[in-house]
Amino acid sequence: MKRSERLVDMTKYLMERPHTLISLPFFAKRYDAAKSSISEDLAILKHTLAGNQDGILETAAGAAGGVRYIPYLGQKHAEDYLADLSSRIEDSSRILPGGFVYLSDILGNSQDLQKIGKLIATHFAYSKVDAVMTVETKGIPLAEAAARYLDVPFVTARKRSKVTEGATVSVNYISSSLSRVAKMELPTRALQKGANVLIVDDFMKGGGTLTGMEELVKEFEGSISGICVLCEADFDKEKLVDNYLSLVKISKIDTQKRIILAEPGNFLDQTDFSRF
Amino acid sequence: MKRSERLVDMTKYLMERPHTLISLPFFAKRYDAAKSSISEDLAILKHTLAGNQDGILETAAGAAGGVRYIPYLGQKHAEDYLADLSSRIEDSSRILPGGFVYLSDILGNSQDLQKIGKLIATHFAYSKVDAVMTVETKGIPLAEAAARYLDVPFVTARKRSKVTEGATVSVNYISSSLSRVAKMELPTRALQKGANVLIVDDFMKGGGTLTGMEELVKEFEGSISGICVLCEADFDKEKLVDNYLSLVKISKIDTQKRIILAEPGNFLDQTDFSRF
Repeated sequence: MKRSERLVDMTKYLMERPHTLISLPFFAKRYDAAKSSISEDLAILKHTLAGNQDGILETAAGAAGGVRYIPYLGQKHAEDYLADLSSRIEDSSRILPGGFVYLSDILGNSQDLQKIGKLIATHFAYSKVDAVMTVETKGIPLAEAAARYLDVPFVTARKRSKVTEGATVSVNYISSSLSRVAKMELPTRALQKGANVLIVDDFMKGGGTLTGMEELVKEFEGSISGICVLCEADFDKEKLVDNYLSLVKISKIDTQKRIILAEPGNFLDQTDFSRF
Repeated sequence: MKRSERLVDMTKYLMERPHTLISLPFFAKRYDAAKSSISEDLAILKHTLAGNQDGILETAAGAAGGVRYIPYLGQKHAEDYLADLSSRIEDSSRILPGGFVYLSDILGNSQDLQKIGKLIATHFAYSKVDAVMTVETKGIPLAEAAARYLDVPFVTARKRSKVTEGATVSVNYISSSLSRVAKMELPTRALQKGANVLIVDDFMKGGGTLTGMEELVKEFEGSISGICVLCEADFDKEKLVDNYLSLVKISKIDTQKRIILAEPGNFLDQTDFSRF
């Protein structure tokens, strides 16, 4: 196989397996090529990816060595995307009763999910994350996208008992938007004991739902790698969680005047883009 | 930029935008290269992809011409994957009360979702599909994966009224597993009138939930492009829907003896792999 063909296939192979270590001998065998040729191929790949600030190739030396594709978005891409996303969210037709915002179009758009997943994977690229957790329903595509680019599984907590998941662990939490005690549960087998869990959700008002997921992680004797929400309602001042990341901050919703103001959240400040 | 670098970048660019027509002049400008060079690059890309039976590059000639990356899995890949998936599902620890099967690990695994999404996109690669529809909760990652590789949005019907989605259209359907009339709804703005909708779900017993989604599509004056489920319970003989695709068929669950039998579903027979 020619170099040009190897490069096409390698790019595809690595992109489909983010964060997975692929050994040089594997590629050498796949293409029936010398390891020195493969090394040169990978140098080209590395150089090209680095120029785009959209994914890098990491080389691990030694006997257990190889390469790993780390998806990420550089600072400029992140700023541009979150500015664009915020301006799309600043649309009065999105205002729903109760200070909620219609986001299902964004949560059902593959290109948005790709960007959002990469952003979350950028922040947590070098964190210990064994699983991504969300709670049904709207956080699921976000959790899926983040998990995809971090190469970890994702699990979905449920708000009501279902017969179809077997034994579960359940917790109670204060649902701040409903001002009542609610219940959330996860199948016992869904998460390893002691797992490092990244919590993801679509919308945070008071943060009650997030505390429910924190409780669930504790019940599994796990650690919280981080908390990341797509939208934070900044006008709801009392938050029940600290140390969360938000991609977009909604600073004002005026249901009467049909005004919604959105801007990039704390994600940009809290993320170290210089590591890549 | 050198050819080798262009090839890496092009592969990545196209893979991130399945089914999207990219014009030759766009690439020529992006790489500051002659159109003839770009044509040669694309010929290499096309040739390499074709050899793997895992995605092809289609060329559209003429003024509105360009190239389009069509993700698909060839017959051998499909057979191998569905045999592997079936054998993983044939695990007695998956048996849940009521003839259900624990699938959340598969539905939370990015590599599985990638394969499943590509399989569904293979079958419907040349069908009219404007949106993928599922119903909460477990079908969501499947719908997301299929929508991703078909480059269309996906929408999630909900089984209970939520205040956070605005105006909705709702339908009643017979939930066969619960033997009662249930309700399902979709936000009015989630789907265009007259859309061609691909219905996706995780598990089909009698098919009642699928009829609910069919009803919803009708309410939006849409057409059904197809119905695809991950698992079909073949021992539930009376199906309320026809013309569905199943990736895996579960032919037997014996809760007492802890036996579950699974095999590839009708997907392989119903899919024309020769088109690629």
